[in-house]
Amino acid sequence: MVYPDTFEGFAVQSAETWTQPKRTEYTPRPFEDTDIDIKVIACGVCGSDVHTVTGGWGACPYPLVVGHEIVGHVVRVGSKATTGLKVGDRVGVGAQAFACLQCQQCKNDNEIYCKHQLDTYGATFPGGFVSQGGYASHVRVHEYFVFPIPDALDTKLVAPMLCAGATAFSPLYRNGAAPGKKVGIVGIGGIGHFGILFGKALGAEVWAISRSNAKKEDALNLGADGYIATQEKDWAAPHAMTFDLIVNCANSSKNFNLDDYLSLLDVNGKFINVGLPEGDGFQIHPFKMMGNAAVFGFSHIASRKEILYMLKLAAEKGIKPWIETVPVGEEGCGTALKRCHDNDVKYRFTLVDYEKAFN
Amino acid sequence: MVYPDTFEGFAVQSAETWTQPKRTEYTPRPFEDTDIDIKVIACGVCGSDVHTVTGGWGACPYPLVVGHEIVGHVVRVGSKATTGLKVGDRVGVGAQAFACLQCQQCKNDNEIYCKHQLDTYGATFPGGFVSQGGYASHVRVHEYFVFPIPDALDTKLVAPMLCAGATAFSPLYRNGAAPGKKVGIVGIGGIGHFGILFGKALGAEVWAISRSNAKKEDALNLGADGYIATQEKDWAAPHAMTFDLIVNCANSSKNFNLDDYLSLLDVNGKFINVGLPEGDGFQIHPFKMMGNAAVFGFSHIASRKEILYMLKLAAEKGIKPWIETVPVGEEGCGTALKRCHDNDVKYRFTLVDYEKAFN
Repeated sequence: MVYPDTFEGFAVQSAETWTQPKRTEYTPRPFEDTDIDIKVIACGVCGSDVHTVTGGWGACPYPLVVGHEIVGHVVRVGSKATTGLKVGDRVGVGAQAFACLQCQQCKNDNEIYCKHQLDTYGATFPGGFVSQGGYASHVRVHEYFVFPIPDALDTKLVAPMLCAGATAFSPLYRNGAAPGKKVGIVGIGGIGHFGILFGKALGAEVWAISRSNAKKEDALNLGADGYIATQEKDWAAPHAMTFDLIVNCANSSKNFNLDDYLSLLDVNGKFINVGLPEGDGFQIHPFKMMGNAAVFGFSHIASRKEILYMLKLAAEKGIKPWIETVPVGEEGCGTALKRCHDNDVKYRFTLVDYEKAFN
Repeated sequence: MVYPDTFEGFAVQSAETWTQPKRTEYTPRPFEDTDIDIKVIACGVCGSDVHTVTGGWGACPYPLVVGHEIVGHVVRVGSKATTGLKVGDRVGVGAQAFACLQCQQCKNDNEIYCKHQLDTYGATFPGGFVSQGGYASHVRVHEYFVFPIPDALDTKLVAPMLCAGATAFSPLYRNGAAPGKKVGIVGIGGIGHFGILFGKALGAEVWAISRSNAKKEDALNLGADGYIATQEKDWAAPHAMTFDLIVNCANSSKNFNLDDYLSLLDVNGKFINVGLPEGDGFQIHPFKMMGNAAVFGFSHIASRKEILYMLKLAAEKGIKPWIETVPVGEEGCGTALKRCHDNDVKYRFTLVDYEKAFN
């Protein structure tokens, strides 16, 4: 194989044309001695990709290749890399591509909250290079954010774990989802379906919480122990103060009565949001929250340490997300982005057939 | 001593006359076999007393004797009492007087969050009896909410621990204030000054956070390791992501920029409110809170278990709140309520001279 100086990817060109990515060639940032180059073999399609390319989360540096649920093979290892990766290893990359690794947060395995963290795509690196994601032939990433993938995990199934799976896993793991604990997963979509899978894998009793009963059968098939439809009258009362943890994976706060959800929590229970709904945020009513001393907060993807543990657990427990494969390419990327935007997927796309697209 | 059939207290008569309590005689609820009758010898004056008698927290069942930082001697013990109290024991009573003691919350030492919990004053007990507080000759309370007081603690100093002290202590203790942890106390008043004292007693590094520098000297004299004045420009930036826990004791949310306070917290840090500001509550901005995965919540007084531990710790560490004594009576109660309302006390009133008032 001739090692490439430039990478190729399918880049969205503007907010108006976000469903029509174009094949593009680009020069990656200079290779550093702690970097890993990866030849991509699969990539999940994430809601973040849609929020970014549509401009929903703010200005986007077009043209941009998105994709941060990347699986590939190592093709180059920096001379000062220390994590043991070798050319040919199958590895994964998630939503984060850089952190300082020096600050208090980094030293405490919280590099996701490092002030210097940079995203896998759309972030400006030194020299002005904008990071490009995994709808591409290759990616170049600091070794700390490259994760070896256990042999037991299928490439197309592990891809969406690298952002959606990790996003669901971290708040469950950090907040004590375990045998004897009752956990609610709000919003049964790409992230929420991982919430059910990983909540069960961690041993918790898991309830799916959704607006209607439309996803009841899926949720139970995914392993949920119970199901709550919030369109039903007085839905919250029978479950008052019984949950230890609720992870809110819904990506809309429209008609969302937070007080009802918080009332489900036992004393000091936690309501953790992983979605970032566009809009004004949440209104907190002290007298309601005082009733059970619940806490309300957010969680952002997962640390390296958590991702490595998640992959190990997924391999051990044989966790299988529900995915649909789409061939990578201008058409495939555009279709997957559009259908992801429309919530028309159960529950996650994986872009495949990279050999065909880039050989 | 002749045991009384009726109690006497200083009762507020209406929202219009809340600074003029009147001496009143009343019949307590029937004595039950798990009750303790207490002859009061001192009582703290709490912000809750003011919020209640002014109608600020809603309808108040006038006439009402307030006061829920009660110290006294046991004068009668129910035949089925099991906590070992004896006639003559010096005991304390805080803000809670009843819980079911059967539910999941009660069994987990969270009886403060029991759905059947009743307050020390202003709560309607079976038979329609409204509970009356400690600006009175006696109180009748279920034994579970009566706490033996260690000999080392001075009566006038221990009284305000029973609500203000407990309110500051529980969120510190539950949320891990300990050596190696950095804790912020927002609002240096009755509760906040206990926050400094107990935060230090638990071994944490404690910073006082106040609007101006007016309370700096007091805070440092109370033992604070540092002081932050939020009126100063860019006050938050130098302390970003350095606190493990912040306990908000301020009783106003006016001009309160929550995002700034939350930015002080390290990853997964906690911002716990113990005040109940009148008003609309708090607005939460997801993108801000995602930056450190802080959580936001509330805490309500303290459990029996926590109060007993707090009293033990206070005795061992020689904790001395700053108080001003006022003789109990129509004039004393009215003056203390008025000055408490005006924040004209450093930092807590204790009503004393009960022998003179009620003999």
